Amino acid sequence: MSQTKFLLDESKMPTHWYNIAADLPVAAPPVLHPGTMQPVGPDDLAPLFPMELIMQEVSTEREIPIPEPVREVFRLWRPAPLIRAHRLEKALGTPAKIYYKYEGVSPAGSHKPNTAIPQAWYNAQAGIKKLSTETGAGQWGSSLAFAGALFGLQVQVFQVRVSYDQKPYRRALMETYGASCVASPSNLTNAGRAILAQNPEHPGSLGIAISEAVEVAATNDDTKYALGSVLNHVLLHQTIIGQEAMLQLEMAGDDPDVVVGCTGGGSNFAGIAFPFIGQQLRGGKKRRIVAVEPAACPSLTRGKYAYDFGDTAHLTPLTKMHTLGSTFTPPGFHAGGLRYHGMAPMVSHLKELGLIEATAYHQVACFEAGVLFARAEGIVPAPEANHAVKGAIAEALRCKAEGKSEVILFNLCGHGHFDMAAYTQYFAGKLTDQSYDEAELAMALSGLPSVPA
Amino acid sequence: MSQTKFLLDESKMPTHWYNIAADLPVAAPPVLHPGTMQPVGPDDLAPLFPMELIMQEVSTEREIPIPEPVREVFRLWRPAPLIRAHRLEKALGTPAKIYYKYEGVSPAGSHKPNTAIPQAWYNAQAGIKKLSTETGAGQWGSSLAFAGALFGLQVQVFQVRVSYDQKPYRRALMETYGASCVASPSNLTNAGRAILAQNPEHPGSLGIAISEAVEVAATNDDTKYALGSVLNHVLLHQTIIGQEAMLQLEMAGDDPDVVVGCTGGGSNFAGIAFPFIGQQLRGGKKRRIVAVEPAACPSLTRGKYAYDFGDTAHLTPLTKMHTLGSTFTPPGFHAGGLRYHGMAPMVSHLKELGLIEATAYHQVACFEAGVLFARAEGIVPAPEANHAVKGAIAEALRCKAEGKSEVILFNLCGHGHFDMAAYTQYFAGKLTDQSYDEAELAMALSGLPSVPA
Repeated sequence: MSQTKFLLDESKMPTHWYNIAADLPVAAPPVLHPGTMQPVGPDDLAPLFPMELIMQEVSTEREIPIPEPVREVFRLWRPAPLIRAHRLEKALGTPAKIYYKYEGVSPAGSHKPNTAIPQAWYNAQAGIKKLSTETGAGQWGSSLAFAGALFGLQVQVFQVRVSYDQKPYRRALMETYGASCVASPSNLTNAGRAILAQNPEHPGSLGIAISEAVEVAATNDDTKYALGSVLNHVLLHQTIIGQEAMLQLEMAGDDPDVVVGCTGGGSNFAGIAFPFIGQQLRGGKKRRIVAVEPAACPSLTRGKYAYDFGDTAHLTPLTKMHTLGSTFTPPGFHAGGLRYHGMAPMVSHLKELGLIEATAYHQVACFEAGVLFARAEGIVPAPEANHAVKGAIAEALRCKAEGKSEVILFNLCGHGHFDMAAYTQYFAGKLTDQSYDEAELAMALSGLPSVPA
Repeated sequence: MSQTKFLLDESKMPTHWYNIAADLPVAAPPVLHPGTMQPVGPDDLAPLFPMELIMQEVSTEREIPIPEPVREVFRLWRPAPLIRAHRLEKALGTPAKIYYKYEGVSPAGSHKPNTAIPQAWYNAQAGIKKLSTETGAGQWGSSLAFAGALFGLQVQVFQVRVSYDQKPYRRALMETYGASCVASPSNLTNAGRAILAQNPEHPGSLGIAISEAVEVAATNDDTKYALGSVLNHVLLHQTIIGQEAMLQLEMAGDDPDVVVGCTGGGSNFAGIAFPFIGQQLRGGKKRRIVAVEPAACPSLTRGKYAYDFGDTAHLTPLTKMHTLGSTFTPPGFHAGGLRYHGMAPMVSHLKELGLIEATAYHQVACFEAGVLFARAEGIVPAPEANHAVKGAIAEALRCKAEGKSEVILFNLCGHGHFDMAAYTQYFAGKLTDQSYDEAELAMALSGLPSVPA
């Protein structure tokens, strides 16, 4: 058996993030102010974010330096390993070569610290003392809690209620890092109270939790808001994943034909994919780039490409993205990190440009793939990551059927150690494929804001 | 800030395990057959273990080769990182340098796969199809389940009931790897049924679970037994930890003055410590080697050094060790991996030779240390590992008081992602220091077998 694990020396950890905006053939549509319908400027965003992050949000520089104190923290676990899935290949009987970038080695167990650390650092540099945020499964909330602990920031997390109840261990992790965590919708905000007045048992959604976190930041001078996905600067911070993978595949002497990532808000997918797409845009190899989303919350495959709010209470600016409508509440499936009504505007734009493909799977098939992966490779993936595993296995089986030995790269964005209750349900036969309500989707889409052309 | 993480290249992963028996000034006392009181021979152990492992158990060769298929699996996560705890040092204000070897990067989240993989491999080579074992917190059971999945062995795990109930995620992990797991005492064995007849609500103990697993192996021709600690060959397999740490400290340009590990059965402690003790025995630097155990199950600090059974039903041979008595049932504290009545005979022997020190802490102080560590370093330790963290912090604070900049190395043997319920209890103020019953200890010690001098 040839080499299994490809580790970069610390000295080769990327010094800059890769900004795909520099290489786009057509710029992404502007972010609009919902009152004026005019493009927002940096000052509009200043109540929510420190200026350094706002500048990254709109930058068209190809390379943006990673501050040394951020790299210093990254060195706790980065560069993350790239692993050749020899045993999975054998189990599938595929002639394809499968590689996975493993982001579960971070202290929080996922890729989310890649942006939590710089976001906390830029806020600390700007003199901010508190951060408010939302979280679904808890991967983002625990990552920002971790980052807050390192840079002395208080962190307040609004966790989608269904995940808050399903995943108490993630909450405990946030508290271990010193953050406070409440179930959303909560009584702490106007947005939360309005939802609870309609339905005291509301399961919550990322859109609602974002409203609550944004409200706290917008109404408290000492508090800024941090988002774990969707925004350009968040996707930017994740590009360290793909940049490292590119160097590691060079070590392995391979070049991927297909790159696969799971998509909720789009950040881990962007992280693995954007550096490869950028290479192609600059005249390099054309590859298939596949986004895999949950069939129960299929923004890329079933959503509308339109301007929409990022949250339920309509406190955010309008962004053009693939959306299921900001009032859409997805069913309570286990990949809580993928339960968002919209897709990152930059990922959506690339989809419109034909630079990426998208596919959707239901959760039972994804857990089946995850268990196969765990028994072959040893690592138990997070439910979100199971979607990427499923997508990669589908590609490997296609290669088998076609007799092709393509090189498949996917991002294993986190481990499932906090999500074992979902695996227990799967083994007990209690995990079912949950579908969204078509009528609710139609209603949510009918409520999209009208934006002048 | 100087370098944080010290990674060995895969090419430098040790090719041999280090066997401390080769360097002992006095051999450890022999293992005795409880019927004849004569030293056991390889044939006595053959019903339980494959011959290759029995030969390792009694070997006095200094270096024992690690089979290439075992190293191939190790490469999924090994060499494991050595990390300089810069932020913890700063938080403590200590002039000491603190390094930790991090074994939580394994797929099972602890050091246990270091021996699970070779044990499964040697059994598979010997044509064995099934393994039975016990587990406390579940770290060992999930590691053997992982190993069984890779080499096609069925694994049956008897898990101590209190941990089975406290830590359902570990059980789910075992099942994800395809193993079956039952609470011990169980109705599947004579040993289990006898205990349940006396007390249907018995919380279980490692001693009872060992009896059950040994009984299954001894009464089924196609099944062998695997133990996760205590035995010489298990400790041997863990020495890869200390050997790697030694190379990594050379990279860092440091040499430890104090080496700290937590001790339950003794395997992770042996793993980090034996290579350093061996160096000293061969004329090298004298270091302080500190074993940290739970005050609620203090075999090294409060037990008797005597021949005793390894299990409750007295199915095992007699070994000379620090023991609390084989009928001793420790309270249900959260470091389930440290809830064993005896200490590895080899660790006990080194204690008697004055080559190691031992200290004990209660669990609340250990969790306090673990939270301090998590907020400084980002990694949330397993409750077992919190004992090592506590021990290392105590040494660092001593250095501060004495104005000494000693080099402290400790083994962070696993992460706490499966143990967050214990952290939740800690934050809720519900975690208390549990003490054993002095009368029960006296009774257990009075029942030690009498062995002719």
